[in-house]
Amino acid sequence: MNNSKIAYLGPEGTFTHQAALLFFGNDNKFIPVSRIKDVFSAIYSGQANYGVVPAENSTGGVIADTMDLFINTRLKVYDEIKISITQNLLSNIDKSEIKRIYSHPQSFAQCSGYLSSYFPDVELVETNSNTEAAIMAAKDKNGASIGPEMGAEMYSLQVLENEINDNKDNTTRFFIVSNICRNELRSKSVILFSVPNKFGALYYILKIFKDNTCNMTQIASRPAKTKNWDYVFIVEFENLTNEKKNKKMIEKIKRNTDFFDYLGTY
Amino acid sequence: MNNSKIAYLGPEGTFTHQAALLFFGNDNKFIPVSRIKDVFSAIYSGQANYGVVPAENSTGGVIADTMDLFINTRLKVYDEIKISITQNLLSNIDKSEIKRIYSHPQSFAQCSGYLSSYFPDVELVETNSNTEAAIMAAKDKNGASIGPEMGAEMYSLQVLENEINDNKDNTTRFFIVSNICRNELRSKSVILFSVPNKFGALYYILKIFKDNTCNMTQIASRPAKTKNWDYVFIVEFENLTNEKKNKKMIEKIKRNTDFFDYLGTY
Repeated sequence: MNNSKIAYLGPEGTFTHQAALLFFGNDNKFIPVSRIKDVFSAIYSGQANYGVVPAENSTGGVIADTMDLFINTRLKVYDEIKISITQNLLSNIDKSEIKRIYSHPQSFAQCSGYLSSYFPDVELVETNSNTEAAIMAAKDKNGASIGPEMGAEMYSLQVLENEINDNKDNTTRFFIVSNICRNELRSKSVILFSVPNKFGALYYILKIFKDNTCNMTQIASRPAKTKNWDYVFIVEFENLTNEKKNKKMIEKIKRNTDFFDYLGTY
Repeated sequence: MNNSKIAYLGPEGTFTHQAALLFFGNDNKFIPVSRIKDVFSAIYSGQANYGVVPAENSTGGVIADTMDLFINTRLKVYDEIKISITQNLLSNIDKSEIKRIYSHPQSFAQCSGYLSSYFPDVELVETNSNTEAAIMAAKDKNGASIGPEMGAEMYSLQVLENEINDNKDNTTRFFIVSNICRNELRSKSVILFSVPNKFGALYYILKIFKDNTCNMTQIASRPAKTKNWDYVFIVEFENLTNEKKNKKMIEKIKRNTDFFDYLGTY
């Protein structure tokens, strides 16, 4: 894609920035914003045509902020992109001198085994981004940060240790956010719904998938916010090869829900 | 309860501290620790008999760290306690002078509507606890923090605005963690399980609940960590009044899962 305006969860040098560059290529205008909600606002306001936000990490799980924004807006998922996440320990001091490690909470979660083994008594300071963490580590004479190598280059830190994420197959899925989703059916679809607060309501939705021999690849839940302990479900499934049957199945699911939103296909 | 040693997610003055005091009363030894995992470790090591950790907030959703620790340890849920969470804006300066607001990410999530409306351009700085946020706000001449009133008293901050949480019915459930769960069946049970990676596996579990006219009150999922995009499910349900039938139902669920852990009843 060329000449698009793309808002992403910044600042420059984050994994989301990497994902945005990988998906769209360099010939576009990239707009770093500081919160996931600002990515959505940038699309609403017309400041951007597309947005890039983290959706789920293979270790840390779904990104709650992103799911909640899809629940509360009518924006769509245009596509997904998965990138392999390698976390590194960055600092200009020796490991033995480290008293504070800065990072984003998701990065801490992805390295929690490593941190417990090698830095059980070090203070962990949560930051809004890995880039911010690198900036703070560079300023702190007893500081280190966790994040991508890109951050080390940008803020003149050394990579003290490579690939400190516990799961070596650590992957994050990013969603490409847009006003519209694709028309042509691709391999998977993602939907949001809530079910009536009555006995067996979720069971009946899963039965529709089962009766259609449709494979659900993900199910997650988020608080509905309208009433305590009610939930909105996020379900991703493999589309049926028969497009007509797929449409019919989705219609049936919709009829059995209180709230329904077809987010997109990719 | 008296003369127990209770580890809780500290420091002093957090909502978890409030929950611990409310559940156990004052005549106990309370041990503040700095991470949720340290609560679990304190019980394993025998340093504490019980632990108190946040399990779910009605707006922010399940606390991923807590769920992951139950997945990765054999500790149990001894009980739950719900407390109403009132977030306040704390500072010693005028609202117009605020340039930075410090708080725990969960507190930010609970006040995100308020913050967008009244402080759209203010820097939000994530901290490890609301107590740490209050300490940092007290030191920053353009700082404020979000948290319980208890924090304002402890760190000599003024309450600039009361009850800034978006959902006025904002509630957090805390779990009382222990080596053992209760023997006698109480109103609800909570279980963890993963299903074989085959078509309809989750559907069959929900069918067991449905066939027993058993009401599920919560379902959430977390990454299984053994394999990317596999999940462990956390399900809370209302126990059947017939204890024998309830046991039989649980046995049947267990037989249809790959991994199963009965966490407790409360």
